[in-house]
Amino acid sequence: MKIENLHDLFLHTLQDIYYAEQHIIKALPKMIKTADSKALAKAFEAHLEETKEHVKRLDETFKLLEEKPKATKCPAIDGILKEAEELMSEIKDPDTRDAAMIAAAQAVEHYEITRYGTLVSWAGQLDLGPAAKLLSQTLKEEYAADEKLTKLAESKLNQEAAE
Amino acid sequence: MKIENLHDLFLHTLQDIYYAEQHIIKALPKMIKTADSKALAKAFEAHLEETKEHVKRLDETFKLLEEKPKATKCPAIDGILKEAEELMSEIKDPDTRDAAMIAAAQAVEHYEITRYGTLVSWAGQLDLGPAAKLLSQTLKEEYAADEKLTKLAESKLNQEAAE
Repeated sequence: MKIENLHDLFLHTLQDIYYAEQHIIKALPKMIKTADSKALAKAFEAHLEETKEHVKRLDETFKLLEEKPKATKCPAIDGILKEAEELMSEIKDPDTRDAAMIAAAQAVEHYEITRYGTLVSWAGQLDLGPAAKLLSQTLKEEYAADEKLTKLAESKLNQEAAE
Repeated sequence: MKIENLHDLFLHTLQDIYYAEQHIIKALPKMIKTADSKALAKAFEAHLEETKEHVKRLDETFKLLEEKPKATKCPAIDGILKEAEELMSEIKDPDTRDAAMIAAAQAVEHYEITRYGTLVSWAGQLDLGPAAKLLSQTLKEEYAADEKLTKLAESKLNQEAAE
């Protein structure tokens, strides 16, 4: 796909985050299974459901643009998930592994926050009001998911790992 | 390096962000050269100087831990910078390319925000007060850099690309 203007770039970034969301859906079940803390497993489960909803919203956004939903390879999310995968299999201590998984999940959230933030801003500038609204909704949920992970990290989990 | 507890994980993550900062220093000169907007080039230049300072602070942090500064390969930043590089060379329209570069730089900032955020939190839990202080200072500057890019993106730049 040739990127000649902001509309093309918007579409390309939409395809990038579409790929990212799909790979997050593939990665989460292992994280749910590996989490030692029940609260963490529950948070990942809730986020899996939310992520499925985000994909649906992206489908709707493509529809609004009269484009077929398409994923374009996103080396950034591949790298973030690869790091998470490596740490999950390397760390044997359950509390330390949970701390690493929270950090990995927060890196994922921040990647999504930056991409959706950019998409919302561009949608506004391209006068794509309904698309901006859908993307804003997801952006809000990604911020909330990150906040939830921060709270989990700062409560019991890391304190156990530090003992 | 075997990760057996939160202290090991803290050190590993420090090595990860050390690698990331060094690769950002390598990537920025091309971004400065490629930027069409003078304000954007100036923002990248300022961030290059700031990033060099962040590396120095990481050197100090390693010293506080009585560890030699070491970088560990970070697939996440590699992926983020690879995407940035690809977009920079693919997009010919200067305004659209600037918009893509701002988005890429914000993805970098958010990666740093999440990693430094985690490190500050862990440093607190590990009772590493002086390290937490150094890392907090960098975290604050990464937030400010991201904010600066948002303002640049929402002002002139993207509007030009949308025309």
